[in-house]
Amino acid sequence: MIKAGIVGGTGYTGVELLRLLAQHPQVELKAITSRKEAGTPVARMFPSLRRRVDITFTEPTPRALAGCDIVFFATPNGVAMGEARTVLDSGARIVDLSADFRIKDVAEWERWYKTKHAAPELVREAVYGLPEVNRHSVPHARLVANPGCYPTAVQLGFLPLVEAGAVDVDHLIADAKSGVSGAGRKTELSLMYSEASDNFAAYHVMGHRHWPEIRQGLAQVARRDVGLVFTPHLTPLIRGIHATLYARVTKDVDFQALFEERYAKEPFVDVMPEGSHPDTRSVRAANTCRIAVHRPPESAKRSDTLVVLSVIDNLVKGASGQAVQNMNLMFGLPETAGLDQVAVVP
Amino acid sequence: MIKAGIVGGTGYTGVELLRLLAQHPQVELKAITSRKEAGTPVARMFPSLRRRVDITFTEPTPRALAGCDIVFFATPNGVAMGEARTVLDSGARIVDLSADFRIKDVAEWERWYKTKHAAPELVREAVYGLPEVNRHSVPHARLVANPGCYPTAVQLGFLPLVEAGAVDVDHLIADAKSGVSGAGRKTELSLMYSEASDNFAAYHVMGHRHWPEIRQGLAQVARRDVGLVFTPHLTPLIRGIHATLYARVTKDVDFQALFEERYAKEPFVDVMPEGSHPDTRSVRAANTCRIAVHRPPESAKRSDTLVVLSVIDNLVKGASGQAVQNMNLMFGLPETAGLDQVAVVP
Amino acid sequence: MIKAGIVGGTGYTGVELLRLLAQHPQVELKAITSRKEAGTPVARMFPSLRRRVDITFTEPTPRALAGCDIVFFATPNGVAMGEARTVLDSGARIVDLSADFRIKDVAEWERWYKTKHAAPELVREAVYGLPEVNRHSVPHARLVANPGCYPTAVQLGFLPLVEAGAVDVDHLIADAKSGVSGAGRKTELSLMYSEASDNFAAYHVMGHRHWPEIRQGLAQVARRDVGLVFTPHLTPLIRGIHATLYARVTKDVDFQALFEERYAKEPFVDVMPEGSHPDTRSVRAANTCRIAVHRPPESAKRSDTLVVLSVIDNLVKGASGQAVQNMNLMFGLPETAGLDQVAVVP
Amino acid sequence: MIKAGIVGGTGYTGVELLRLLAQHPQVELKAITSRKEAGTPVARMFPSLRRRVDITFTEPTPRALAGCDIVFFATPNGVAMGEARTVLDSGARIVDLSADFRIKDVAEWERWYKTKHAAPELVREAVYGLPEVNRHSVPHARLVANPGCYPTAVQLGFLPLVEAGAVDVDHLIADAKSGVSGAGRKTELSLMYSEASDNFAAYHVMGHRHWPEIRQGLAQVARRDVGLVFTPHLTPLIRGIHATLYARVTKDVDFQALFEERYAKEPFVDVMPEGSHPDTRSVRAANTCRIAVHRPPESAKRSDTLVVLSVIDNLVKGASGQAVQNMNLMFGLPETAGLDQVAVVP
Repeated sequence: MIKAGIVGGTGYTGVELLRLLAQHPQVELKAITSRKEAGTPVARMFPSLRRRVDITFTEPTPRALAGCDIVFFATPNGVAMGEARTVLDSGARIVDLSADFRIKDVAEWERWYKTKHAAPELVREAVYGLPEVNRHSVPHARLVANPGCYPTAVQLGFLPLVEAGAVDVDHLIADAKSGVSGAGRKTELSLMYSEASDNFAAYHVMGHRHWPEIRQGLAQVARRDVGLVFTPHLTPLIRGIHATLYARVTKDVDFQALFEERYAKEPFVDVMPEGSHPDTRSVRAANTCRIAVHRPPESAKRSDTLVVLSVIDNLVKGASGQAVQNMNLMFGLPETAGLDQVAVVP
Repeated sequence: MIKAGIVGGTGYTGVELLRLLAQHPQVELKAITSRKEAGTPVARMFPSLRRRVDITFTEPTPRALAGCDIVFFATPNGVAMGEARTVLDSGARIVDLSADFRIKDVAEWERWYKTKHAAPELVREAVYGLPEVNRHSVPHARLVANPGCYPTAVQLGFLPLVEAGAVDVDHLIADAKSGVSGAGRKTELSLMYSEASDNFAAYHVMGHRHWPEIRQGLAQVARRDVGLVFTPHLTPLIRGIHATLYARVTKDVDFQALFEERYAKEPFVDVMPEGSHPDTRSVRAANTCRIAVHRPPESAKRSDTLVVLSVIDNLVKGASGQAVQNMNLMFGLPETAGLDQVAVVP
Repeated sequence: MIKAGIVGGTGYTGVELLRLLAQHPQVELKAITSRKEAGTPVARMFPSLRRRVDITFTEPTPRALAGCDIVFFATPNGVAMGEARTVLDSGARIVDLSADFRIKDVAEWERWYKTKHAAPELVREAVYGLPEVNRHSVPHARLVANPGCYPTAVQLGFLPLVEAGAVDVDHLIADAKSGVSGAGRKTELSLMYSEASDNFAAYHVMGHRHWPEIRQGLAQVARRDVGLVFTPHLTPLIRGIHATLYARVTKDVDFQALFEERYAKEPFVDVMPEGSHPDTRSVRAANTCRIAVHRPPESAKRSDTLVVLSVIDNLVKGASGQAVQNMNLMFGLPETAGLDQVAVVP
Repeated sequence: MIKAGIVGGTGYTGVELLRLLAQHPQVELKAITSRKEAGTPVARMFPSLRRRVDITFTEPTPRALAGCDIVFFATPNGVAMGEARTVLDSGARIVDLSADFRIKDVAEWERWYKTKHAAPELVREAVYGLPEVNRHSVPHARLVANPGCYPTAVQLGFLPLVEAGAVDVDHLIADAKSGVSGAGRKTELSLMYSEASDNFAAYHVMGHRHWPEIRQGLAQVARRDVGLVFTPHLTPLIRGIHATLYARVTKDVDFQALFEERYAKEPFVDVMPEGSHPDTRSVRAANTCRIAVHRPPESAKRSDTLVVLSVIDNLVKGASGQAVQNMNLMFGLPETAGLDQVAVVP
């Protein structure tokens, strides 16, 4: 059994990790820390875990995590970079669900996250945990930077096109819609039920923190800089991201076949049949990304633009499920271990 | 007082017309027809109208509408084209909320609506009732084709750019999200609460009936054919459309000023300050379109793509409110008469 | 024109007052105060009010309200009791939407609201503003205590029964369900979209602040103490209260007729036909309470228990609409002035 | 491996059975029938099951189910009673999720379901599959009548009180709120998103089909007739039932202890700590009933009425999960086999 610890388990990615790890056949949940909730049984805070998780939040001290094989950071941005070194030195490996180690260009990271980075040398070491791209380096990593939710949905949708050099990468467009849990378990006015329900709006159109992360990932496979307009929207869902992606065709190929071949062996990427419209609920509570690709007419004469639809559950394939997938790879377990939940529909 | 009749008043655009006309200071509601509900008091079907609307559904006969100055068709597509001639001959004028008279190219209409058109000569006569474009012809019209909901939001968002010749009109993109009431008051599985709630998906990506309508409208102001990718999505709202529009800049102008000047005198189009993200609830139950224009960076070097955000209530500015606005213009009333409802927030 | 001021206009009852007063034919909105937002145009905070409300939040000083005929307190509990005296001395009259003046027994109030009352003498003077009970005293009041949302729905549902002495008043039960806006525009975890959406729960079953208010109101008409179990629930609505009321019959009368006669002349209470199930949306955004009364079988032999269904919009008849209704009565205007909005359906 | 068949698997209880059985370690899914969808792969209809369920709907012939050890009827009321005999004769056992075999009094059943019963002799044989009451008879049953969703939540909440003879069973009250999926996967106007969203209403207050089922179950444990007012409400949830139960105390006992002892050994009934308010999401997608018991004051002097809060997921403990629980009992498997899903929160 792999001994697992969670730092900062009171947010949505934390409780989702607990849900998944409680059902994982080869994981023993050793410790979960929270400064604020130390002493509170986890199941008192999340009654959904009664009878399933019987540990108690503890102070986030090094002692609390001693003996763990793997530590998940489910903390706000800026915490993991300060504590990762100690955890690694204790012999544990890390999957960080926050943004601290995702951006290789430290100056760029500091610009977007408005803090000085506390561990630039660990940024260099960290492996970006998108298994569909980095499956070969994740198993050897001590420190995995788990991707953001939007970046997972958007990169998986663009990847086959960019890898094939089939589209104009100077002008990619990602029109993305996210459920409210993507913003975390925090009390901001715009996330209140009376504000977010029966309402729809874009936000951060002029710049969102996931923009540099997506561009970095796509530039890596394109082997050149890419241009991207990224428009996030808040939509009245609890869970779910729907990315609608637009790219101008530069090389004619069979796009349906391109996607199917690229993801043929991926356990968690499902290319839907031609003409499909994947809906977010078809991946609700499951570690799956479903994708469809369309080439609609623009006029009688033109059909230059591809439309890719990509859906994930932001808390599973967009966060905690992907973290478990990375853990499985790091410890030589079957990649799907503990991740066989069927989507909850309706 | 203007005597008004409604044909087919049991759908959502019908009940919304009733809500608006019941509060209109210069309209007397004379008749409302429904074959299926003839004999039923309107307020029994819609208890929200108790004490406010005391008429009864009647059989849709010519007699029922005798004496009306204006007749609104709130019928499914394909009904108005068969009955409009009789109504016009009786001396009444018409605002048709269905799609029957919107597309000037009859063959194109027949392709999309899969029916032979019953009154091509009235198509020629009909005026497309987007007041922000056709304010000068609506007052003289006998027959107004009230625009579709998506077409209203999308055209108002693109108009200033296309008129100014400032963007590449071969490759416009409209990523549009609609509340469920846009599909009408009909029982389709995909519109059920258990299917549409907590769920998000695109639909008809390869071709939606509003695509030719939008292209026709934009081509008219561009004075040339336009290319458009139009991606509609169903989102868990009752009311509301949010159109996110993308266009490649071909001529540099002050886009904020362009929009503000274009709509400076429009009572129902509100250009928001720079940096705004209009939300759909800010127009809930009101006859308003709110618009914001952004020019985000695509990379360190490029900023070629404009993002326009345009929101309406699909049942008001996208249907019944715009119909009343057209009626006001046709009868020489103040354009805002009976349309001063403040948006309902929260 | 009546000159109106609002103290503390940044909450939901505040913005709803603005929506209603902006459409009121005989009110001029003079001032709105907010310590935190002083200097911010109201319409910047609430874009739904753009072009309709052009005033700016000001510091809550006596000067700010000088010249007002009526001042609405839309403040958290505990504010109005400290400022009411100054406002009254300036010659203005007051409608207080908070709970400060609702409970006549000051000790009881202090127990529930956990504060020392700052103006017990004004509690004595204040008139409880439920027009359906106190229509004759409201017009003469300087200070009206506007009822709570639950108390409005529950009292209007029980009133005819209690007045008629037809039920056992020792064991009334009110099972009440409220939309989330009833909790105000504040950031509490349980009110977040991701917590309150697709979720349903009771709260404060052992004691809610509206319990003594309801008991006081019913005791007044019963002329004796009453027993009440009051179970509030949070339900995924923005607006709306549905109270399901249970009372044991002690005297057989025609209950449908009893309700119809009691409310025959009330402009804002609608007794539905026998067998009806009023839904909350039928009063959405309207100042209406709809009521239905049922007497279902309990077994083959018994039918002892009445079930009354009572619905209001918590922000209108449950707060700001009722406040305007009270203002109309205080200033001799038609009771319905500015309150003719038709419910927004769907 | 137990070979399982499903008759009528296109509804919500059908797809939920598929979700649960696909994860059950000791079940092989052999066949699923649907007249209308014969020939359609299950996963084409429910993309959430892609890669997890690879069978195809077949015609509902006896051949289709040959070789099954267990057959689940997930059909509309009135189907199972006509086909059960043939299935039993083939040697399979049955769990019927419809209402056909729930009511022992056939005349009563025929009154409520407005059909002549086709197999009264099987009604006599059928065991009512509420394991918390009939755990000892279910293992021997050939035919189990799986309880309704409301009856499960309401009976589990009242059981300890009725068994203990501690409350007045002539005047029980069950105020129950159900998510929309409880009505099934059918297209009725009142179940549309635009009708049911942001709306709350009671329905069938004068008589609902689950009323006789609940009364029968409670009468059995009370060993006498019981009186019950049952008020169902439709609430904007996809899944979830919240039953708020009221009973007048006739004998003073420690009610918290009574509930805890009654359910101490039940794997799927969780008595929450004193003062709790279970929410429906805490059982979302899990086979759990959570219960809390309160005794609030009615006045300064009285505290005669108990309030029990009982929540289930209507599709799991209220339908398909309970069906699997019954199957486990019938085949001597651990009662919890395949039912260890953790509730999905948020």
